[in-house]
Amino acid sequence: MEQVFASIITIGDELLIGQVVDTNSAWMAQELNKAGIWLKRRVAVGDVKQEIINALEDQAHDTQIILMTGGLGPTADDITKPVLNEYFDGKMVVHEPTLTFIRHLFENIYRRPLTERNLHQAEVPDVCTVLPNARGSAPGMWFEKNGKIYISLPGVPHEMKDIMTAEVIPRLRQHFTMPYISHRTLLTAGIGESYLADIIQNWEEKLPAHLKLAYLPNYGMVRLRITGSGADQQLLEQELDSQFAQVKALVKEWMVIDEDLPLQVVVGQLLKKQGKTVATAESCTGGYIAHLITSIPGSSAYYKGSVIPYANDVKKNLLQVSPETLSTAGAVSEDTVKQMVQGALAALGTDYALVTSGIMGPDGGSPEKPVGMVWVAVGNREKTVTQLMNFRFDRMRNIELTTNHSLNLLRKFIIEQA
Amino acid sequence: MEQVFASIITIGDELLIGQVVDTNSAWMAQELNKAGIWLKRRVAVGDVKQEIINALEDQAHDTQIILMTGGLGPTADDITKPVLNEYFDGKMVVHEPTLTFIRHLFENIYRRPLTERNLHQAEVPDVCTVLPNARGSAPGMWFEKNGKIYISLPGVPHEMKDIMTAEVIPRLRQHFTMPYISHRTLLTAGIGESYLADIIQNWEEKLPAHLKLAYLPNYGMVRLRITGSGADQQLLEQELDSQFAQVKALVKEWMVIDEDLPLQVVVGQLLKKQGKTVATAESCTGGYIAHLITSIPGSSAYYKGSVIPYANDVKKNLLQVSPETLSTAGAVSEDTVKQMVQGALAALGTDYALVTSGIMGPDGGSPEKPVGMVWVAVGNREKTVTQLMNFRFDRMRNIELTTNHSLNLLRKFIIEQA
Repeated sequence: MEQVFASIITIGDELLIGQVVDTNSAWMAQELNKAGIWLKRRVAVGDVKQEIINALEDQAHDTQIILMTGGLGPTADDITKPVLNEYFDGKMVVHEPTLTFIRHLFENIYRRPLTERNLHQAEVPDVCTVLPNARGSAPGMWFEKNGKIYISLPGVPHEMKDIMTAEVIPRLRQHFTMPYISHRTLLTAGIGESYLADIIQNWEEKLPAHLKLAYLPNYGMVRLRITGSGADQQLLEQELDSQFAQVKALVKEWMVIDEDLPLQVVVGQLLKKQGKTVATAESCTGGYIAHLITSIPGSSAYYKGSVIPYANDVKKNLLQVSPETLSTAGAVSEDTVKQMVQGALAALGTDYALVTSGIMGPDGGSPEKPVGMVWVAVGNREKTVTQLMNFRFDRMRNIELTTNHSLNLLRKFIIEQA
Repeated sequence: MEQVFASIITIGDELLIGQVVDTNSAWMAQELNKAGIWLKRRVAVGDVKQEIINALEDQAHDTQIILMTGGLGPTADDITKPVLNEYFDGKMVVHEPTLTFIRHLFENIYRRPLTERNLHQAEVPDVCTVLPNARGSAPGMWFEKNGKIYISLPGVPHEMKDIMTAEVIPRLRQHFTMPYISHRTLLTAGIGESYLADIIQNWEEKLPAHLKLAYLPNYGMVRLRITGSGADQQLLEQELDSQFAQVKALVKEWMVIDEDLPLQVVVGQLLKKQGKTVATAESCTGGYIAHLITSIPGSSAYYKGSVIPYANDVKKNLLQVSPETLSTAGAVSEDTVKQMVQGALAALGTDYALVTSGIMGPDGGSPEKPVGMVWVAVGNREKTVTQLMNFRFDRMRNIELTTNHSLNLLRKFIIEQA
C-alpha cells in the first residue's frame, strides 16, 4: 500500500488570457480523491513547447501521476501531442481503431467533410497506450517513464470526463495498490460554516487521523464530507457508519439529507414519493429556480411549470394578486407572496407552490425596502408559510441565496404535510 | 517600455480536492491582459508552507509580478500571511485603518460578535504595503523583493475583484512603463469557429504582429477580440479601427454586435430603443432564458415575464395551445411553438414573444423526435418565425445552445420589425 500523489497540467493559451474558466481540474480532483489519490498541485501553461516540458519535469519530482488536459485539437496551436511524442522518444503512427472511429464520426454524426487535419488526429506516438475517446476525435494517451505515469486527455469537458471514468480511473486502480477509500456526505441548510464548526468541534477533534472532514459551503448551505481510508474495507465502513451517525445527531436540526445530492433533487424525490406536484412563481429569482429544477432529467414527473411575473400586470392577470395589495403593500410584501402561492396553485394546477418576490439590486431599493430584501412563500391549498430575508450581496448571489433558502423552505413544508 | 509577465498562485486545499472551481484566475487574466500584462503561468497549491514557498521561488524566475489569492481567512488552515511574513523577513504589526474597518464591519454590517480571531486579521507584515479591502476583513498586501512584485489577495471573488480594480491594476500601471493596450471585440452567432477562421484567414494572416486575434467560442457563438499594443496611442487606435472595419465587413452576415456585450444585453438594448417589451414561454429551456434576461439589472423595463409550460396542461390553460395540436403534432412541433407565441403575447401582454419546445435528454427521445430536437419560435401579433434545431449533446449543453440560438433569432426578428 502506498500514498499516491497526482498533479494536473492544463495546457492552452486560452487559460492564460482568461477566455475560459477551468472547470475540468475541480472535477478531476474529486474523481482522483474518490479513488484515494491526493492531488498535490495544478499548473496551467500556454501552448508553448518549453513551458510544457518544464511543467512535466517539475511535476514528476514529487508526484507519481501527471495528468494533462488540452492542446489535442486539430489546429496549428495545439502542440501537446508532438511535444509528448518527442519527450517520450516516440514516433507517430496511425492508430487504426481511432481512424475508423473518426471516419464514422464525420460521416454519420457530424455529417461534415473530413479534412486532412482531422485524419491526423488518428496519429499517436507509438510509445503510448491509446485511451479511446467515445465522444470526439482526439484520443487520450497513457505514457510510462521512470515509474511515473503521464496521461494526456482532451480539454473538452464531456470528452475528458468519459475517458477519465471509463479508462483512467480503472487503470490507475489496477496500477497502484491503494488504500480502500469511502465517503459519507450530508447536506445542511440555514447555518453558517463557522457556527457549524462550533457545534461539531468536540466530535471533529476526536476523529481518527484516517478519517478526514471537509466543509463544502455553497450559498447558505454547507455540505460535510467524511473521507476515510484504510486497508480493511469492512472495518472502515463500520467506523464511517458510526462517526456519521454521531455527526448526523449533532446537526440534525439543519440537516437536509445524508447523501451527496443537490437540494432540487432532494425536493424532487420527496415529491415523487408523495405522488405530488409543484409549481413555482418567481418574481425576483426570474426563472433560476425553474432552471435548477428542470435541469434534472425526469423533473416533468413532479414539476408542472412556472409563471414568472416580472411585471405587476402579470402578477394580477395570471396569479390573481389583488391590485389593492400591489398598490398598498407593494410587490415585495408578505400579502403579495401569499396571494401568489394561491394564484400559482390555481393557474398551474399543482399540489404545492413556491414563490419569490424581492429586490435583487443593484438598483430599486428604498429605505423601507432595501436591496436584498426578499419575501418567499410556499404552500398548498390549506396552508401557506412565508419567510422574510435580508441579503447584502450582489444581484447574482442574492438570486442564488434566495433560491437555496426557498427550496429548503419547500422541502420542510413537504415533509410536514406527509 | 518593457514586456511584463505575471504568474498567479492560488492557495488552498479546497482547490486540490475539487471543492471549488477557480473562477478568479480567468477574471484576473483578463484584467491583466487589458493592462498589457501577459500571464505566463497559473499554479494551485495547498495550504502547505513549503509548497507556497516553492511556488513563490519558481514563479519569480521568469515573471516580474507574482499574484496570490487565498489563504487569508481567520481560521487555522489559512497560513498565507505568516508564510509571507517569514519569507519577506517582516514582523507582524497592527494596521490601524484595517482594525477600525473590521470593527465597523462587525458592529454595523455583519452585526455579529467580534472574536479575537477576527481582530488578528488587522495584523500585517511591516514590510508590506496594505491594499485596503472595502468588502471584507482580510486586506490585500503588496511586497517588493529583488525587483519582483508579490501581491497577496483574498480568495473571495468580490473582495479580490474590488482590490484588483481599485489598487492592484492602477499601481502596476504606475510601476511599469507598459505599452499602450487597446481592444476591439465583436460577437458572432450561427457560425462555427473553424468556418469563421476560413472566412477571415486572408485578413488574419496579414495582421501586423502587434495586433493579436483571439477566438472566444461559447455555445453556438464566437467572440472575436483584437488586442493591440504600441507606444503611440493615436496611431494604434487608428490601426485598430481600420482592421476592425475590415473584419466586420467579412463577418457581417453573422455579426451580432461590435462591442463586448452578452446577447441578452444586446436584445435588451434593442427593445429599449424601440420602447417594446418581450415575454418568454420556455418549455424545454425551463426558465434558463428568463434567468439570463433577468440577471441583467434594469431588465424589468422590457421584460414582463414568462410562462414555463413544463406540463401540457399548462400549455393548454395558460398559453391556449389547442388540445388537438398537442395530441396530433405533439408538444415538440412547429404548430405548438407557433401557438405558444400567440398565447404568450396574449397572456403576458407584450409586443414580442420567444418560445422553446424540445427534447433535452437524456431520456424522452424517439426515432421521430430524437434527443436534441428543438423547435423555437419568435413573433409578434402579425408574424411568427420558427426554427428547427438538432443538437447532439448533454442536457445542459442542449439548454445553453437552445438559449443562445433563440435569443439570436429574437434579435434578428426585432431588427427586421424596426
